[in-house]
Amino acid sequence: MALVVMKFGGSSVADADKIKLVASKVVAKKNIGNKVIVVVSAPGNTTDDLLKMANKITSNPSAREMDMLLATGEMISISLLAMAIDSMNVKAISMTGSQAGILSDASYTCAKIKKVNPKKIKVWLSKNNIVIVAGFQALNSNGDITTLGRGGSDLTAVAIAAGLDADSCEIYSDVDGVHTTDPRLVKDARKLDYLSYDEMLEMAGSGAQVLQSRSIEVAKKFGVEIHARNTFSENQGTIITSEDKIRRNKMETLLISGIASDKNQVKFTLIDLPDIPGVAAKIFGRLAKIGINVDMIIQSAAINKKNDISFTVNKHEMKKTQIELDEIATELNVSEVLCDENIAKISIIGIGMKSNTGVAAKMFEILSKTGINIEMISTSEIKISCIIDEFDITKAVEELHKGFGLSKRSK
Amino acid sequence: MALVVMKFGGSSVADADKIKLVASKVVAKKNIGNKVIVVVSAPGNTTDDLLKMANKITSNPSAREMDMLLATGEMISISLLAMAIDSMNVKAISMTGSQAGILSDASYTCAKIKKVNPKKIKVWLSKNNIVIVAGFQALNSNGDITTLGRGGSDLTAVAIAAGLDADSCEIYSDVDGVHTTDPRLVKDARKLDYLSYDEMLEMAGSGAQVLQSRSIEVAKKFGVEIHARNTFSENQGTIITSEDKIRRNKMETLLISGIASDKNQVKFTLIDLPDIPGVAAKIFGRLAKIGINVDMIIQSAAINKKNDISFTVNKHEMKKTQIELDEIATELNVSEVLCDENIAKISIIGIGMKSNTGVAAKMFEILSKTGINIEMISTSEIKISCIIDEFDITKAVEELHKGFGLSKRSK
Repeated sequence: MALVVMKFGGSSVADADKIKLVASKVVAKKNIGNKVIVVVSAPGNTTDDLLKMANKITSNPSAREMDMLLATGEMISISLLAMAIDSMNVKAISMTGSQAGILSDASYTCAKIKKVNPKKIKVWLSKNNIVIVAGFQALNSNGDITTLGRGGSDLTAVAIAAGLDADSCEIYSDVDGVHTTDPRLVKDARKLDYLSYDEMLEMAGSGAQVLQSRSIEVAKKFGVEIHARNTFSENQGTIITSEDKIRRNKMETLLISGIASDKNQVKFTLIDLPDIPGVAAKIFGRLAKIGINVDMIIQSAAINKKNDISFTVNKHEMKKTQIELDEIATELNVSEVLCDENIAKISIIGIGMKSNTGVAAKMFEILSKTGINIEMISTSEIKISCIIDEFDITKAVEELHKGFGLSKRSK
Repeated sequence: MALVVMKFGGSSVADADKIKLVASKVVAKKNIGNKVIVVVSAPGNTTDDLLKMANKITSNPSAREMDMLLATGEMISISLLAMAIDSMNVKAISMTGSQAGILSDASYTCAKIKKVNPKKIKVWLSKNNIVIVAGFQALNSNGDITTLGRGGSDLTAVAIAAGLDADSCEIYSDVDGVHTTDPRLVKDARKLDYLSYDEMLEMAGSGAQVLQSRSIEVAKKFGVEIHARNTFSENQGTIITSEDKIRRNKMETLLISGIASDKNQVKFTLIDLPDIPGVAAKIFGRLAKIGINVDMIIQSAAINKKNDISFTVNKHEMKKTQIELDEIATELNVSEVLCDENIAKISIIGIGMKSNTGVAAKMFEILSKTGINIEMISTSEIKISCIIDEFDITKAVEELHKGFGLSKRSK
């Protein structure tokens, strides 16, 4: 008897009909001989509605109280889903994160799971119940409710799969799986059958919003194979697994698995920095201290003991960054701080890159032929990212998708 | 430093502005030197909305899952209220029923509080926090969430006041306190300054929906003085306390404190029952077994070894009662089962009755002069109830209110 973890996102439990559909999928999974744990997010727009309520009270709500408030969303889904399964005469029991033994550290609104204590889940599974666990929420050591950040339900599912050594972990959403690029941007984007953890991580970090990054890290660490698939179809989705397994099984390998784009970036440039040791450390140390996540960094070669540094941050951290940079600039005697909002990041990702030279050159050539100017470049073992004009992003994605042979036609 | 429990109902926390008003009332109470515990219900129509959601899933939802679902309503109020207080720079912390140590038996949807474990509440009070507790919900010994039935937040407030030996327990709603009769029915209904527990109990049981009956029983048992008052005014409300204290302090004593009406009743009559021992026990035993709460019972004197029994039940239990009675009637060879929906109960309540004769006679005389026919009569030490035609109820309330000198003018 296999143990299956199934996770359904908010769009899959947005109304009574969808909840009933999820119930029937879950029951079908049990009826073919599996033990089933279901993890669900809050229904549809519930989380946003709760955030709006809080904002009507105060623009700066206490983090602990925000978590208390947001945790209600998943409690609604789990109880309604349990009712729906129960009404099909199949035993089901709902559990809050706390009841399910999802234990976190004390950092509210983006807590980290420290441990899964699966005792209660196991008891109910052994009593032949479908166990329904509230995603996104946990309990800290003070007995307070915490939440795991955007997409935290994925993390709950993977952590439970790891903690109970589940045979599979299926993450359902309203798309068919992971695509070569965003199907809303490029019509002939192709669904990938397999993807390595690292590729998925790079894609998630580059703007593809299929799975939460931390959940992929945890899946990689504990070897949890994820099946990302569509709630509203029976099609096979995308299996996210280890690079080893992909190579061992000679699964489809592409030079490039995917192309991700991210318009949610802003570029800062500090002009004429003194070329002395410790300057970069000072700038990025100060930004880290106030919680700003810097993405790409480029430092030009020094000319006349001066150089320039450019870097990108998330758009919603622009103001905070600007204020801090103005202070730093005064201290370091920087001549100018430039800010460019009209940029976007385009990334190509693939484990095939490791053993193939010339991938970067090909990318630059395709962009150049399309008349797109590259402002910044950053590379990792399995990813190349370029900052370009925001205006060019769709064209860039299309051309790279075509150029690297990812279209449906090229399969 | 006094310890005050303040309870606010759903209409007092129905939107952001009302929550802010409650926050300012709570903070004002703290600022004059009190320790404050606040108990809140779910905002406005939240509970009804959640019930509707469940009904879209199934007409017969599991009780455990219903409690999991309904408990979210109060979690929304407590977190929003904590945010509102916090934004006034006063320390506040929200607690679910479970976190606050409200422990119940295992009966879902109408659990009974077994114990209040005030440890955590005390810790936060000692740290100078306003402690905000979710009403209506508790934790059973399995670690499941339970709810306490309609009006259960009153019970939470009284149980906490008893468990922490609070100096006062203020129950806020959108009315000024307890009135001589429903002010929506009779314009010159008068607010009562004092009322004994027993009078309040009889009034609650007779259709006055000011406080939940069980909360009054608990208040009486533990000597918790309740102050029922209006969220939206600073006026003194109604103090509900012991008869002893009322008499000792020579507080206002009226012959009759209040007049309650209840249109939510239905009358059954069994005609020609065999006049043998055990018949009544059989009928009411069977009804009790299926959970039907019988209110008034009248048995006529036996004629020809046959007699009739009439009784009333709540309207929403009419169908269930009808089905059971049809079976009993066949077994007992009863000639007819009558059901009358067009009735109402009118009750006069007052501890003054104990030491005054002629109250019943006066009531019957007033009704008779008004041309109202009495179908059933039932009396207790401090209450007289009559079943009359539903059509006559408003007139009956008005005339009795006038006749017993309860109008504002008569004060």
